[in-house]
Amino acid sequence: MAKQPKTLDELFHDTLKDIYFAEKKILVALPKMTKAAQNEDLAAAFAKHEGETEAQIERLEEVFALIEKKPQGKNCPAIIGLVEEGQEIIKEYKGSPALDAGLLAAAQSVEHYEISRYGTLRTWAEELGLDEAVELLQATLAEEEATDKALTELAEAVINQEAEGEDEAAA
Amino acid sequence: MAKQPKTLDELFHDTLKDIYFAEKKILVALPKMTKAAQNEDLAAAFAKHEGETEAQIERLEEVFALIEKKPQGKNCPAIIGLVEEGQEIIKEYKGSPALDAGLLAAAQSVEHYEISRYGTLRTWAEELGLDEAVELLQATLAEEEATDKALTELAEAVINQEAEGEDEAAA
Repeated sequence: MAKQPKTLDELFHDTLKDIYFAEKKILVALPKMTKAAQNEDLAAAFAKHEGETEAQIERLEEVFALIEKKPQGKNCPAIIGLVEEGQEIIKEYKGSPALDAGLLAAAQSVEHYEISRYGTLRTWAEELGLDEAVELLQATLAEEEATDKALTELAEAVINQEAEGEDEAAA
Repeated sequence: MAKQPKTLDELFHDTLKDIYFAEKKILVALPKMTKAAQNEDLAAAFAKHEGETEAQIERLEEVFALIEKKPQGKNCPAIIGLVEEGQEIIKEYKGSPALDAGLLAAAQSVEHYEISRYGTLRTWAEELGLDEAVELLQATLAEEEATDKALTELAEAVINQEAEGEDEAAA
C-alpha cells in the first residue's frame, strides 16, 4: 500500500502524541528523582515539577480536543533514553557526593527535550492557525524554561553542599 | 564488592564519555539528514554542522587530555533515542511536504540535548578549576546555541516553502 504524503497537521498530531507519551514517562520518573535527591531544595524542585507535569498533561489533552483527536501516546525513544540516563545516575551514584549533581544534569536534559518539543509544536500551531493551542503550548513552554532556570541556579548550591560533604568525610 | 562513592571529577569524566559517544553518533546521522532534506538551505545547515561536529569531537579529545584520560565513549541511551526519532521521521515522512519540518524538529531536539550537556560540563569544569576545559566547552556550547538559533530561523522558511508545495500539488 502506497503511503499518503503527510502534511504539517499530521506532523503536529504525531509530535503531540510523542510529547504526551513523554510527559507520562516523566510523571512516573519524577517521584524516583525526588526520593533519590539528597539536597532538600532539589527534592522540593522535583516534587514541584511533578505537579506542573500533571497540569501540562491536561493542557496536552486540551490541545488534542482542539484538533478533534483522542489523547493518545506514541512511543518516544528519546524520552525512554533520557529517563534511562537518570535511572543509571541513581544506580551508579547512590550514596555518592556527586549524586545530586548527576540528578540535576539528567533533569536538565529532560527539560531541554521538552523545551525543544514545545517550541516546535507552538511554531507549527501558529502556522496551522490553532490560536488556542498556541496559548496552551506557550504556557507549558514558559514553565519548562522556568524549571530549567531554577535547576541551573540549584546546581551551584548543590555542588557547594557536596564539596562540604566531602570535606566532612575527609575530616 | 562495595562501590566507592563517586565524586564530581568522576561524574565529569562519565559525562564527557557520554557526550563523546553522542557526538560520534551525530556525526554518522548528519549526512543522512543532509541527504533527506528537501530544502537546500536546510541541507546546507546540516552539512555545515557536520564540519562543526568534527571540530567539537576534537575539542572533547583535548578535554580528555586535560584530565589525563584516554578519549573514550560511554553508551548514551538518550542520543540513541534522539537519533532514532530522526530516522523515523525520514522513513515516515519520505516524499511528504512535512518532511523538512520534521527533520528540523529532530535536529533541534538533538541540539537541545547537546546544549544541556555542554552547559552542565562547563559548570562542573568551573567548579573543578579546569580553566582550559571551561574555554573549550564554552566554545562548543556557543556553536550549538548558534546552530539551534539558525534552525529556528530556517523553520519558518521551510514551513512556507512546504505550504507552497502543497498549493502546487492541489492546483
